[in-house]
Amino acid sequence: MRAVCVLGTGLIGGSLMRAATRAGRPVWGTAASEATAAAAVADGFDVTTDTDAALARAAEADALVVVAVPLTALEPVLRRIDAVAPTCRLTDAVSVKVAVADLVAEHAPRARYVGGHPMAGTAESGWAAGDAGLFDGAAWVVAADDGLDLDVWRDVADLAWACGSRVVPAAIDEHDAAVARISHLPHLFAAVLAAVGAGDQGDDLALALSAGSFADGTRVAGTRPELVLAMCEGNRAALLGAVDDALGRLGAMRGALASTGGLAATVHAGHEARMRWSSTRDPLALPVDLHGDDVFAELRELGRRGDVVEPPKE
Amino acid sequence: MRAVCVLGTGLIGGSLMRAATRAGRPVWGTAASEATAAAAVADGFDVTTDTDAALARAAEADALVVVAVPLTALEPVLRRIDAVAPTCRLTDAVSVKVAVADLVAEHAPRARYVGGHPMAGTAESGWAAGDAGLFDGAAWVVAADDGLDLDVWRDVADLAWACGSRVVPAAIDEHDAAVARISHLPHLFAAVLAAVGAGDQGDDLALALSAGSFADGTRVAGTRPELVLAMCEGNRAALLGAVDDALGRLGAMRGALASTGGLAATVHAGHEARMRWSSTRDPLALPVDLHGDDVFAELRELGRRGDVVEPPKE
Repeated sequence: MRAVCVLGTGLIGGSLMRAATRAGRPVWGTAASEATAAAAVADGFDVTTDTDAALARAAEADALVVVAVPLTALEPVLRRIDAVAPTCRLTDAVSVKVAVADLVAEHAPRARYVGGHPMAGTAESGWAAGDAGLFDGAAWVVAADDGLDLDVWRDVADLAWACGSRVVPAAIDEHDAAVARISHLPHLFAAVLAAVGAGDQGDDLALALSAGSFADGTRVAGTRPELVLAMCEGNRAALLGAVDDALGRLGAMRGALASTGGLAATVHAGHEARMRWSSTRDPLALPVDLHGDDVFAELRELGRRGDVVEPPKE
Repeated sequence: MRAVCVLGTGLIGGSLMRAATRAGRPVWGTAASEATAAAAVADGFDVTTDTDAALARAAEADALVVVAVPLTALEPVLRRIDAVAPTCRLTDAVSVKVAVADLVAEHAPRARYVGGHPMAGTAESGWAAGDAGLFDGAAWVVAADDGLDLDVWRDVADLAWACGSRVVPAAIDEHDAAVARISHLPHLFAAVLAAVGAGDQGDDLALALSAGSFADGTRVAGTRPELVLAMCEGNRAALLGAVDDALGRLGAMRGALASTGGLAATVHAGHEARMRWSSTRDPLALPVDLHGDDVFAELRELGRRGDVVEPPKE
């Protein structure tokens, strides 16, 4: 049972320490401040602010190192990995994958890195908000590009399963494009819809008349702006593609509304898409033989079908 | 206690008959088919397919006539009103107000018309879906343009209060612009967001990774397309304005994302708008003296502040 070294004790890192501990794994980690480390220690966890010591222990134990710091704080952590545990088994829990892979290639090029993205979160943040059950039933994306270390791939998938998640394999660029469309764009749409609904300051008639469609469509505009900005701005290239797709569809709709007054194409396409979404809510778990040259191609295809990888039988 | 004649037995008309009956009003009405009339009669309601007879009775009793048929079915009903009960007290329950006022001016110009819009609904339709409690707590917009018949205004407000609703006064063009922004645009945004998220047929990765932000942002894309089309296409002019506002904001956001990568303006504006929305969830009920020349201006101002008209004390 592979040990886990978690760098970062925010909502995701802190939940990961708790979930891996719940699963019986040896777990230790690092916090950015003495206060957070002390809080984690008081809760019974093995947490220090000494990153080099934690990484030396990871190299010694051949542990899986999980980087769970914000994208903007990644570079110095990767430099310490390259200095202390240069060939470690490495994954991460950051919400974009191409940018992280680029930083790893630059600053910790010898690490055996397989990116990950546990798709869980709440409106809360920080060590105290952590929860061993945060990943139960969530999708946990595991990078599935050709040439990755299959042994580390199994480690990351094992950790995801141990934390109660479903393993969704994906090429990292396809992952970033997907989250732009189903997570980042929805936040921007909610912001624009809220602003259009609110209209001019001093005229609350529209807001007063709003009901379910507006309440639901703008809900995530209530998220703390700094969280939304960190998430969206870190995925700029993929997000631009999603925004342009949306603008194209809205422009076509605007043209139809102005010329013939007809909205049937837009409304029917949206209805069909929502029906397709409903059909993906209960993914098939399929067995995959994690050996051979073609395994990553097979895994990527499985992910594109909306299926997940079946955990090994007990 | 004024009697109520309801033309139309769909979800809204059928619920209105039940709610007005619950409030102790004398109620009768008309259905478009013998089968629906028979179903309503079997449920104990006084419903016929003979529109002229129902209207003659309304003229005789000085009842408030409520037109609760779809916008596309309005014209022949108005012609019968003009023939049988030309000066009746008249309101309606259609979701757009300028188009209805234009049709009334053309086809029943002598009616004492004050438009209404009870903002309630479910995914269901038809007589059987009706519910006496449908309007409890809902906003019921009552037209408040200068020159309306204040006596009929009180009748419409009394009916709304009797059905458990909050009375929101508004100029009819401001009403149509408001519902375009907080009801019709959200449906189009949901449709476009669903289509962008679904992307290409055969690639369900994005849908499989979607979570709360996408589920909420696309929920109303699951509404039956014909309902959405009837609602949106009937409010074309106002909807174009809302769509253009949204396109302007999205275009500015796209420009900022492409040039500096910054989304702060969009995200902060959305967050502030959502906070403003939250503050409108518990409207103030204010007393209004329903007399005098300036009463409609006062009512419109009250509606723009997001307040509602206080029902008369018992």
